[in-house]
Amino acid sequence: MTADTRPRTAPLPHHPAGEPAEVPRGLKGVVVTDTAIGDVRGDEGFYHYRQHSAVELAATRTLEDVWALLVDGTLPDGAGRAAFAAEVAPLRHLSPALLDLVVEVAATAPGTGPLDGLRTVLSAVAAAEGFAPTLDLGPAERRRDALRLAAVTPTVVAALHRAAAGLAPIEPRDDLGHVAGYRWMLTGEEPDPVVARALEQYLILTVDHGFNASTFTARVITSTGADVGAAVVGALGALSGPLHGGAPSRALALLDEIGDPDRTEALIRHRVTAGERIMGFGHAVYRTVDPRSAFLRDVAGAIAPERAAFARRVEDAVVATLAELKPGRELYANVEFYAGVVMEGAGLAPALFTPTFAVSRVIGWTANVLEQAADNRIIRPSARYVGPPAPAPVPPLA
Amino acid sequence: MTADTRPRTAPLPHHPAGEPAEVPRGLKGVVVTDTAIGDVRGDEGFYHYRQHSAVELAATRTLEDVWALLVDGTLPDGAGRAAFAAEVAPLRHLSPALLDLVVEVAATAPGTGPLDGLRTVLSAVAAAEGFAPTLDLGPAERRRDALRLAAVTPTVVAALHRAAAGLAPIEPRDDLGHVAGYRWMLTGEEPDPVVARALEQYLILTVDHGFNASTFTARVITSTGADVGAAVVGALGALSGPLHGGAPSRALALLDEIGDPDRTEALIRHRVTAGERIMGFGHAVYRTVDPRSAFLRDVAGAIAPERAAFARRVEDAVVATLAELKPGRELYANVEFYAGVVMEGAGLAPALFTPTFAVSRVIGWTANVLEQAADNRIIRPSARYVGPPAPAPVPPLA
Repeated sequence: MTADTRPRTAPLPHHPAGEPAEVPRGLKGVVVTDTAIGDVRGDEGFYHYRQHSAVELAATRTLEDVWALLVDGTLPDGAGRAAFAAEVAPLRHLSPALLDLVVEVAATAPGTGPLDGLRTVLSAVAAAEGFAPTLDLGPAERRRDALRLAAVTPTVVAALHRAAAGLAPIEPRDDLGHVAGYRWMLTGEEPDPVVARALEQYLILTVDHGFNASTFTARVITSTGADVGAAVVGALGALSGPLHGGAPSRALALLDEIGDPDRTEALIRHRVTAGERIMGFGHAVYRTVDPRSAFLRDVAGAIAPERAAFARRVEDAVVATLAELKPGRELYANVEFYAGVVMEGAGLAPALFTPTFAVSRVIGWTANVLEQAADNRIIRPSARYVGPPAPAPVPPLA
Repeated sequence: MTADTRPRTAPLPHHPAGEPAEVPRGLKGVVVTDTAIGDVRGDEGFYHYRQHSAVELAATRTLEDVWALLVDGTLPDGAGRAAFAAEVAPLRHLSPALLDLVVEVAATAPGTGPLDGLRTVLSAVAAAEGFAPTLDLGPAERRRDALRLAAVTPTVVAALHRAAAGLAPIEPRDDLGHVAGYRWMLTGEEPDPVVARALEQYLILTVDHGFNASTFTARVITSTGADVGAAVVGALGALSGPLHGGAPSRALALLDEIGDPDRTEALIRHRVTAGERIMGFGHAVYRTVDPRSAFLRDVAGAIAPERAAFARRVEDAVVATLAELKPGRELYANVEFYAGVVMEGAGLAPALFTPTFAVSRVIGWTANVLEQAADNRIIRPSARYVGPPAPAPVPPLA
């Protein structure tokens, strides 16, 4: 395969006006669907879930409230919150046969984090529970499958994590909220409310974020009429890509490499001068401060003040050094940077960082699945054949 | 969710010429990438793999030849065929731990066909064997993972099918070709060469078919840098959608419903008059005879002459009735129609039809994964927010 020197745009063969439109490679900026789930305004440093600011929701609401908002379209009041919590709590439980499968899946892939195992087990859950094609289901049945997969995700992640360490799974507790319950299933320890709330705020911030690659994957799969499980499993695959899911642990690795906070400025200056990329800075959409990192900075400060101050010092050093050495190339800390500090402060091992992100993002994926299924049309673009002309004769075997 | 009455096209916000281009809903006709793997010319009733007619390849070559053509770019000669066969034969074997997992996966979802189980098990295989992100691998390593997943697919399908019936798996045989080996693993019976060749010809015809929804899914997931397993698992999810993978068993069901061939014309006329859809006719791309069904008609005739003649009578009745009652609405038998007859003739149960399609199509998916990874750019379109204006204040809990 040689490097492609053709232009990065391609003609649109069936353009209604007859004039081929140029479509950017990778479909960047091409509107593929309408959505009422949310939006990101990169120039403003603002994003929202339905009509509400995501950051304001993180400040004032629970993850279940936001989950109900995304799936059902409105933010619950006190009674609605209780009803939704009562609906999803039983959906966190796994049958004994599926718990056995979790242990077996973890055993076949020792040394890997729970993300691939989550993909395997959610695939099995959807099949075991007979999820039917979204095309053949009514809205209530599709919603049930969507709630089920999102509800059971923390249970599966926690069970995989424990199985990898040779520990038995811990049953979900119906009296705990979704995030506090996740921490309970990881450790079996009564969760500190401050820590659980910090983790919940992080997870509220990452429920959805515009039309990212995993959300798009979930919608493409749903557009074939496939079941909710097929869509979530595909989205997990996209999330596992380094260009998408990223690695919140890399920002922490930077702190660990610096070691002594007083070395921060010199080391950052050295790296920037050498042209090295600083992990945890810059974002494809935001042209200003990432509203998630700004909020998470305070969240981290509440549970891990020393580490958060160190991270802030690194952030300031990166911003100042870039401003001095590479003026005009403004980069800000992205969500990965403080996410790692918050998850570390909440006692999560780095192997759990991306799977924990999935605990939250599965809510956004399933909301997108339901929206796609409610007004579906298959998403099926074209490719342009650029190989040798066909047909060429098939040579006989020598 | 109310019906969407907005126009079916959306403006392209970052169009370079400044004028928003109209992009068809579902991206129909929008070129998302260049490819040298193949193409479908719907108006001509012609499709090709690289520069060779797919039908000519089915007439003269083995599935392994076509597999090598798609993955490596050239059709092997005699020595190349032997080398490729020797390379992929050992890749069909599953470790004892993964075979145990197959049994457990089948046990958790009794009564479902092997398609969902295949998704679950291939996800586990990729994790167990430490597939790394395509972004982090060189071409040879990516090719190895691609060959591995395609090679092991028939083994997994056969083991799942047997486990569902309480039967132990059958070891792959390195002395058999890929398709004959698949039938061996299903039954343990020495394959009849004529039947095995008929099945092989069907599978050659379905290796790839332009930029369908599952192939697109595989490329979107690969575009995030994810591993080959993530892409294949997502593609399997898309294939499970009724709008994509279809159901070759439905055309057989039509034959069974008619029962007596002499009832064909009357029943078809009754159905067409009543406006019912006849399964196995019509295709999104072909505007003339589907070249796959034309070839498969003869393949079916070679192994199941009576059934093939019945199917032909149904095909003629549908075409004649439509020409008389709905002139201008030309519909031809599609690949599903004769595929069912061929697979039935090859002794496959209907539950195996779509999984057997996957045995073949996984070759096309993985070729597309390798092409995408070799010159990657993330595929990430946009959505247009159409919900209520944001931000609206978050109401306090009542």
